[in-house]
Amino acid sequence: MKKLDKKEMQKLVEKAKLEMKNAFIPKSKSPVGAAVLTDKGNIYAGCNVDSGISGLGTCAERCAIDNAVANGEHCFKAILIVSESEEPLKPCGMCLQYIAEFSKVAAHDTKIIMVGSKGKIKKSSINKMLPDTFVPKDFGLNLKKNKKQKRGK
Amino acid sequence: MKKLDKKEMQKLVEKAKLEMKNAFIPKSKSPVGAAVLTDKGNIYAGCNVDSGISGLGTCAERCAIDNAVANGEHCFKAILIVSESEEPLKPCGMCLQYIAEFSKVAAHDTKIIMVGSKGKIKKSSINKMLPDTFVPKDFGLNLKKNKKQKRGK
Amino acid sequence: MKKLDKKEMQKLVEKAKLEMKNAFIPKSKSPVGAAVLTDKGNIYAGCNVDSGISGLGTCAERCAIDNAVANGEHCFKAILIVSESEEPLKPCGMCLQYIAEFSKVAAHDTKIIMVGSKGKIKKSSINKMLPDTFVPKDFGLNLKKNKKQKRGK
Amino acid sequence: MKKLDKKEMQKLVEKAKLEMKNAFIPKSKSPVGAAVLTDKGNIYAGCNVDSGISGLGTCAERCAIDNAVANGEHCFKAILIVSESEEPLKPCGMCLQYIAEFSKVAAHDTKIIMVGSKGKIKKSSINKMLPDTFVPKDFGLNLKKNKKQKRGK
Repeated sequence: MKKLDKKEMQKLVEKAKLEMKNAFIPKSKSPVGAAVLTDKGNIYAGCNVDSGISGLGTCAERCAIDNAVANGEHCFKAILIVSESEEPLKPCGMCLQYIAEFSKVAAHDTKIIMVGSKGKIKKSSINKMLPDTFVPKDFGLNLKKNKKQKRGK
Repeated sequence: MKKLDKKEMQKLVEKAKLEMKNAFIPKSKSPVGAAVLTDKGNIYAGCNVDSGISGLGTCAERCAIDNAVANGEHCFKAILIVSESEEPLKPCGMCLQYIAEFSKVAAHDTKIIMVGSKGKIKKSSINKMLPDTFVPKDFGLNLKKNKKQKRGK
Repeated sequence: MKKLDKKEMQKLVEKAKLEMKNAFIPKSKSPVGAAVLTDKGNIYAGCNVDSGISGLGTCAERCAIDNAVANGEHCFKAILIVSESEEPLKPCGMCLQYIAEFSKVAAHDTKIIMVGSKGKIKKSSINKMLPDTFVPKDFGLNLKKNKKQKRGK
Repeated sequence: MKKLDKKEMQKLVEKAKLEMKNAFIPKSKSPVGAAVLTDKGNIYAGCNVDSGISGLGTCAERCAIDNAVANGEHCFKAILIVSESEEPLKPCGMCLQYIAEFSKVAAHDTKIIMVGSKGKIKKSSINKMLPDTFVPKDFGLNLKKNKKQKRGK
């Protein structure tokens, strides 16, 4: 897949940083922002949303992806993550699984870009970060047969 | 809390129905749409997003809430749910917990409105549907002290 | 459903308290123990298991239920919860949903008993604590047709 | 870390296969079994537990791990997974995250062994399958300071 150009990269960082300010973090106190770039060239952002209990709550990555889906898109060229940590924050396995499933449906290797608070950048991709995971064989196929998906918004 | 007026109700139904079309449902095949009305009078919508595995995936209600949070709002007057089922679809306990936590932070009893495919309406509220749940005592307090929350977007 | 007798109650408290000591709580620091009493009269216990991320981690209630299922049982007369809080700790909506699903399969109203650190007891049931939740219509039916479930261990 | 000996391997397969029969699968219909071998040489097993909703439900791997934790152990040499699929079933990213967190606490590279229905074996480890994930820096440290963890059962 083609590299992101400078403009795309800049926009992703901006949107993820802006979004980080909306993080709902009464428990973790650590704001995280994320932004996805779709195959159509649109950007959707998300922040982390804490819950008071184990097993609930949304990471910024999944929030951004759900936001894109809610806007009718599920094919992602790249996802970018920002946090207040100097060392670029890596997605957790749960978010990687989510990215991997959409990546399989889109049939390409979604880029994962992690940006530290002082600008340090780490680049990877879903195939590198979760090289060998379980995704149901028919996950993508089912979707193509699902006409409801084609209507969009 | 004041009842929703006819216009607010109409808009919520419209947005939730529109959103339902974006449901990502390769596994469940059952599209669900939801829309929240915030204290500021804004509406944010969401749809269900399937995952291939147990424990991942987002219900429409949580998708709509996360979308509102990502836009800087977390106080909800009402949430409305639509589906393809004639009988109005009820939120699951996981979504009710999520609603309850935000409801505690906002300090009001969020309305829950369920709308069937042929217009049948069922009205309730979070205090009725989850009358006695666990929310950490300091969940709301922490938030007020958290200056990051006040910046908004 | 018949009330729990004194002996059953005592055993549930003992097992849940013992289990609480195994809580894996690097994040929450709040140990919780739970024990379920099955229709066959067996008791299975569980503790809370923290995860470093939002959306992962297991509450004591779900841990106890999964333990029972892993031992071939899924019909629960009662679940009891203990914690270090003087005020009896209530299950969250996520655990209530889990209990409600098994309760529907077993076709009875599972009792929920909450015990504070100094012995204060609060009694309720799944139908009272989650009076109106979503459970797929065919959830129980499917199971009965599923021969694999009948083999047990 | 030392390789598993033949006897350990056999026992893990046996326990995971036995456990698979208890899978609670009204929705997925696909039984999965898992077994962990702890540093003390004990084996704990688990099966998958379906829920009717997205975001709930437990994979066999997490069920087995929670069972071990509930028995006072959280350091795992190996985890083994069996299913009805000829091709060895791989853990999902959510389970890998869970394994990675315990693996960090135990400070060793937990082995992951996947066994197909006809005996095909695939061997890997958590560091290979989730090479670069997020685990809170202080996750292990906190635990060591947490005296409650040391009491065991």
